[in-house]
Amino acid sequence: MYQSKLFTKTRKEAPKDEVSKNAQLLIKAGFINKEMAGVYSYLPLGLRVLNKINNVIRDEMNKLGGQEVFLTCLQEKENWSKTNRWDDAVVDNWFKTKLKNDTELGLAFTHEEALTAIMKNHIRSYKDLPFYPYQIQTKFRNEARAKSGIMRCREFLMKDLYSFSRDIKEHETFYERSKQAYKNIFSRFGLGERTFITYATGGSFSKYSHEFQTVSEAGEDLIYICDKCKIAVNKEIISEQNGCPECSNDKLREEKAIEVGNIFNLGTKFSDALDLTYPDIDGKKQKVIMGSYGIGPGRAMGTIVEVMSDEKGMVWPVEIAPFKAHIVQVGEKEEVKKSAEALYEEFTKNGIEVLFDDRDARPGDKFADSDLFGIPLRIVLSEKTLMAGEYEVKERVNGKISMIKEAEVCAFVKKYK
Amino acid sequence: MYQSKLFTKTRKEAPKDEVSKNAQLLIKAGFINKEMAGVYSYLPLGLRVLNKINNVIRDEMNKLGGQEVFLTCLQEKENWSKTNRWDDAVVDNWFKTKLKNDTELGLAFTHEEALTAIMKNHIRSYKDLPFYPYQIQTKFRNEARAKSGIMRCREFLMKDLYSFSRDIKEHETFYERSKQAYKNIFSRFGLGERTFITYATGGSFSKYSHEFQTVSEAGEDLIYICDKCKIAVNKEIISEQNGCPECSNDKLREEKAIEVGNIFNLGTKFSDALDLTYPDIDGKKQKVIMGSYGIGPGRAMGTIVEVMSDEKGMVWPVEIAPFKAHIVQVGEKEEVKKSAEALYEEFTKNGIEVLFDDRDARPGDKFADSDLFGIPLRIVLSEKTLMAGEYEVKERVNGKISMIKEAEVCAFVKKYK
Repeated sequence: MYQSKLFTKTRKEAPKDEVSKNAQLLIKAGFINKEMAGVYSYLPLGLRVLNKINNVIRDEMNKLGGQEVFLTCLQEKENWSKTNRWDDAVVDNWFKTKLKNDTELGLAFTHEEALTAIMKNHIRSYKDLPFYPYQIQTKFRNEARAKSGIMRCREFLMKDLYSFSRDIKEHETFYERSKQAYKNIFSRFGLGERTFITYATGGSFSKYSHEFQTVSEAGEDLIYICDKCKIAVNKEIISEQNGCPECSNDKLREEKAIEVGNIFNLGTKFSDALDLTYPDIDGKKQKVIMGSYGIGPGRAMGTIVEVMSDEKGMVWPVEIAPFKAHIVQVGEKEEVKKSAEALYEEFTKNGIEVLFDDRDARPGDKFADSDLFGIPLRIVLSEKTLMAGEYEVKERVNGKISMIKEAEVCAFVKKYK
Repeated sequence: MYQSKLFTKTRKEAPKDEVSKNAQLLIKAGFINKEMAGVYSYLPLGLRVLNKINNVIRDEMNKLGGQEVFLTCLQEKENWSKTNRWDDAVVDNWFKTKLKNDTELGLAFTHEEALTAIMKNHIRSYKDLPFYPYQIQTKFRNEARAKSGIMRCREFLMKDLYSFSRDIKEHETFYERSKQAYKNIFSRFGLGERTFITYATGGSFSKYSHEFQTVSEAGEDLIYICDKCKIAVNKEIISEQNGCPECSNDKLREEKAIEVGNIFNLGTKFSDALDLTYPDIDGKKQKVIMGSYGIGPGRAMGTIVEVMSDEKGMVWPVEIAPFKAHIVQVGEKEEVKKSAEALYEEFTKNGIEVLFDDRDARPGDKFADSDLFGIPLRIVLSEKTLMAGEYEVKERVNGKISMIKEAEVCAFVKKYK
């Protein structure tokens, strides 16, 4: 993409009321726009990152056997009354609205009820199960406070997968497999090292549920890490039990952390309330066992910004960067232009996603924008590099600069991980 | 995909309150689920079609120079008051909701206000323009009646592109280019022949705007077609002027039609109200000229069902079908199973999207499901075909059946358009 055609511009300052580092950087870089507290629009570069995050999640969910669906935001009262989650006194973060005939509707903050109701039309035999439908879809939560940028929003995308299993054993097998899928996702986001499976309370159906917590100063949660087992427990659990639930180690390390995902055993809570059953091999009615598995793609994006950015700007891992390479043309001489254009075409032809800074602007401003954007490789092309027959290639993650021969640069960029 | 793993099941009857053909068929086939009137969830097969429709639209918008964004549903009052569109007496299809502190919010039914406000942060010079941001995003409209299935929804995806130009001439050049992009889209949807550019009233900024109307008995509009020019006029225009605006032919043919798209000259309506200006080459403030360009992907999907289905079910054009091929295994003999499995693997390896009906079910039920789904090619594999060394290939669009040799079937399917 030609940077001269990109409609967004970088800016020196974020809005004064924006206190979170993630939103400050993303707004300054023109990746997002703040509509109000906790409500952000995604502009072209931000949407590219968000889509890449979604695609990593999709890939791992599909490998788990997930089937993608897309449910609605508008919800009628009926099913939510059956699970006792309609009343604002029970669920305090509903956004509600009304039809013309005054029927009250809710804007979904989750989709257990809706999907359980849909399943009643589709589960006819024990042979049908198990199923793992999921979606990446907009959720609404009427948060009283929203000061963590895109990490805690009133309107946000969520990936929510739900498992429908025949029995506890089938459920537990999937639950364990989902942990590995979640580990894969966070490691592909570059968060693997600092993300801990964290024991949380399990509701009425199992002793524990599990959160995925990424250690960060920007975290709203406190976790207690067992450095032997590489797991953690959350605040509720630490007050209930002494030490690590796996090895009983009681020397746990307290850290601030961001909850980037959670998996939850729902047991028969929803299949009881909405009467979701299947006939077993003897024709006897059995309750379906459910689980839910959430990740917020926007929150993941905010977390990556929080933990990987430096004083110059953002630093994206290759797999989710808006572009892999940033060609920065320095100077307006005809031969520099031509050569930069040729390199841009070569990259494009080779399937490398590349942003080409072809603007007539000061080199210092171009370099500052490039650092702010956090594209993994910056390739500078100037009269000087042209005469040397080499390009200056900078790795954003460590600042390392290499001079690479013209004939080799495309292969270098392609291989870079 | 293995059909035995697909969680959705076909059903004999659609819900009794569902009067539209498109939703009846889509619900019976398990492509969508009705949540309430005008509110439908997309299940795996339906979402596959919707995503393909979105990708055709995206492709044509990107070719036009469009840049994709993703704005928010939640909207504050401020910008909408400036354009006089906040008041429910002026815009009668708002869904409104409230923050905890009682601040009223709206759920966007369109995004001119939001995007014009964003642009104020990004347009700094005449050199920046023109821009063509677009999105495919959920809109909410509080329709009093919603009886046309997925063609008129209270919650629905919309592709909305907005053009920001320096002057009328630049605007008009793009406006004409957008017509061609829309023609391309509807022809890729298989609706080209029966979709007419339709003159509509243009608001205060130009004599005409343009709708894209697809002739169908299910249409809620009436259009008047000039068979010489292959254009149409809508009801407002026919009462204002005699005959075709291009050739003055007054023998126009009345037809029912579905509005599948519209393009609109907004002039300076929004840049006046929200003060969106740019400094021209002399540093003088100029108003930005805007246009808007809409298509509803769900409505397009419903329209395709309305005009292309037959008594057996749906008929999808290859480019937007949920799968290109449907392998139907008939009989449970080991060699049939093995051979079907091998064909499925060969198709998958060759990048052919294929649904594999590996269920232990009656052949008649399998064929009925296949016709209902409307996948372009059905490949039947039975003991009989196996002995003959041939497959029975049926084209859904015309019912034509061919026997194709084992070694040639993959190439045939790949080539099929």
